[in-house]
Amino acid sequence: MKWTGKLALSLRLMAIAAIFAIPATVAAQDVLPSWNNTAAKQAIIDFVAKVTDENSPHFVPVEDRIATFDNDGTLWTEHPMYTQLSFALDRVKVLAPGKPEWQTQQPFQAILANDLKAVAAAGEKGLAQLIMATHAGITTTEFEAIVQDWFATAKHPRFQQPYTQCTFLPMVELLEYLRANGFKTFIVSGGGIEFMRPITLGAYGIPAEQVVGSSIKTKFEMQDGKAVLLRLPEIDFIDDHEGKPVGINRFIGKRPIASFGNSGGDREMLQWADAGEGLSLKMLVFHNDAEREYAYGPADGLPDTKFGAFPQDLMDEAKQKGWVVIRMKEDWKTIFTFEK
Amino acid sequence: MKWTGKLALSLRLMAIAAIFAIPATVAAQDVLPSWNNTAAKQAIIDFVAKVTDENSPHFVPVEDRIATFDNDGTLWTEHPMYTQLSFALDRVKVLAPGKPEWQTQQPFQAILANDLKAVAAAGEKGLAQLIMATHAGITTTEFEAIVQDWFATAKHPRFQQPYTQCTFLPMVELLEYLRANGFKTFIVSGGGIEFMRPITLGAYGIPAEQVVGSSIKTKFEMQDGKAVLLRLPEIDFIDDHEGKPVGINRFIGKRPIASFGNSGGDREMLQWADAGEGLSLKMLVFHNDAEREYAYGPADGLPDTKFGAFPQDLMDEAKQKGWVVIRMKEDWKTIFTFEK
Repeated sequence: MKWTGKLALSLRLMAIAAIFAIPATVAAQDVLPSWNNTAAKQAIIDFVAKVTDENSPHFVPVEDRIATFDNDGTLWTEHPMYTQLSFALDRVKVLAPGKPEWQTQQPFQAILANDLKAVAAAGEKGLAQLIMATHAGITTTEFEAIVQDWFATAKHPRFQQPYTQCTFLPMVELLEYLRANGFKTFIVSGGGIEFMRPITLGAYGIPAEQVVGSSIKTKFEMQDGKAVLLRLPEIDFIDDHEGKPVGINRFIGKRPIASFGNSGGDREMLQWADAGEGLSLKMLVFHNDAEREYAYGPADGLPDTKFGAFPQDLMDEAKQKGWVVIRMKEDWKTIFTFEK
Repeated sequence: MKWTGKLALSLRLMAIAAIFAIPATVAAQDVLPSWNNTAAKQAIIDFVAKVTDENSPHFVPVEDRIATFDNDGTLWTEHPMYTQLSFALDRVKVLAPGKPEWQTQQPFQAILANDLKAVAAAGEKGLAQLIMATHAGITTTEFEAIVQDWFATAKHPRFQQPYTQCTFLPMVELLEYLRANGFKTFIVSGGGIEFMRPITLGAYGIPAEQVVGSSIKTKFEMQDGKAVLLRLPEIDFIDDHEGKPVGINRFIGKRPIASFGNSGGDREMLQWADAGEGLSLKMLVFHNDAEREYAYGPADGLPDTKFGAFPQDLMDEAKQKGWVVIRMKEDWKTIFTFEK
């Protein structure tokens, strides 16, 4: 080959390299654009590369690429209170005219007087009464319509955006990125399963049948010859702490290889993912950005909270076991979907 | 345009028509080949055509194309006894050497003596004892391995084929046909959820997370620092009769538009599908083919059975409500997958 031939070949090789290199570069820039280029983002990309590479010892077939996500505080904001609690409080106000006895009964009296401290003082018993009064006694079809109507108009008190826009954009990107790599994405939340389902497809691209959550009992009945399911004022299942692996096993029947949470209630879910045989990714969102969202712990000296507490011993366990802590302030370029 | 031009155009149009027409003809012949060309097959094809045609008033978007299938007697044979009962009986024999007390305890003594009449006489209490003794006290991971090992060697007593080959070929084709038309297919069975999950993907193309069934309770524990779920000897959920719509609502969160069963235990599931707003397909497999499979009712004067009884009032309800009864003898060209 003459040197001109070599030059031509070399130019051609460069051109071919460029063809392959350019999309690769673009792709790397495009992946998870709302994440800063920190170790957290790199951990996700490295993990996905390994489990999707057929030549890797860590390769996982598509049917076992199960990823589970907590919802409150992991996929959307959970302050100043859980979204479902906002719904329940609003619901009390809607139902109050037909319930004169609530004017003198706690926690209803406190809710109607907008006295949130007195609501909190009613404790777990008050909360249970609140949930049963606002979530039960109607059919599943009626409840679904009520939830949909509420989400269509309710707004987050600080951000003044629909709650379905108060999702975390980096996590929505992560869901899409995992699905683009053959993962099946599930929500595994302490929140009410029938409260989430009407909005998860629109908000997260997660269909109703891939939502696991807490539930109240339902009862099958024929009403005027037509089958209905009546929502009963009785707890069926609490999908929190050790309930999360139990719920994952019941609903999904496979162990997740990637699991994402943000509070003490997610610890057992991450331990369950961790106990799998192959490589797995465990991540916890840490809310340390009071300016753009909220800052709470009590880990790392941040203020304690009633909604989604991240205790110090969870932070210690994460460090010891190599679970990745996502620090919102440092790891996320953009926080909310409504900022897009 | 000259007539030669018209001829050319007309030839071209005929050629285009042929391109579209040929695959359509082939497709029609290929659909559900193990079904005879009876009204049952036509009901399926008509229904699918309507709900998948965007211009039809009955069109259903892909995310709502949910189809639920009972398992025992609907997707595979349930005689001479439920497959899971065969498994439990075999399991007693495997475990017996470590359980000397079973030599004098019912129903174990009867099982070990192959006295099935005495097993039956032990009734529901005996059955519950049998299930707990053979299905609980181990981790979910251990149970899964035991089930897999059993299916790898166990054979149906009459057909001498692995149970996973004793599935109904017309129903396997129906599952594939529905999925090819955008349906998501689910099993909703009275059988044990963790007994079915290890084999549903291979047998039916249905992944574990699309299986709803009966379950016992599980308990999250750390064993030597590793998370496990222990199977407890306690019923969690019976996915039969009114449990089927309850389970569908809990696991799937959407109402099926197509639902398939074969016994009184499926009635409420079909009623639940029936109560939806749009078009829905409800079908019941009727076992009237003693020669090729089994024949039992008690509907239409066939013998009664302990496994999958089809009562006369279900037959009457089907007729009254337009649910389609699949008569194996007349409607199915081939019965079993192992015949393929």
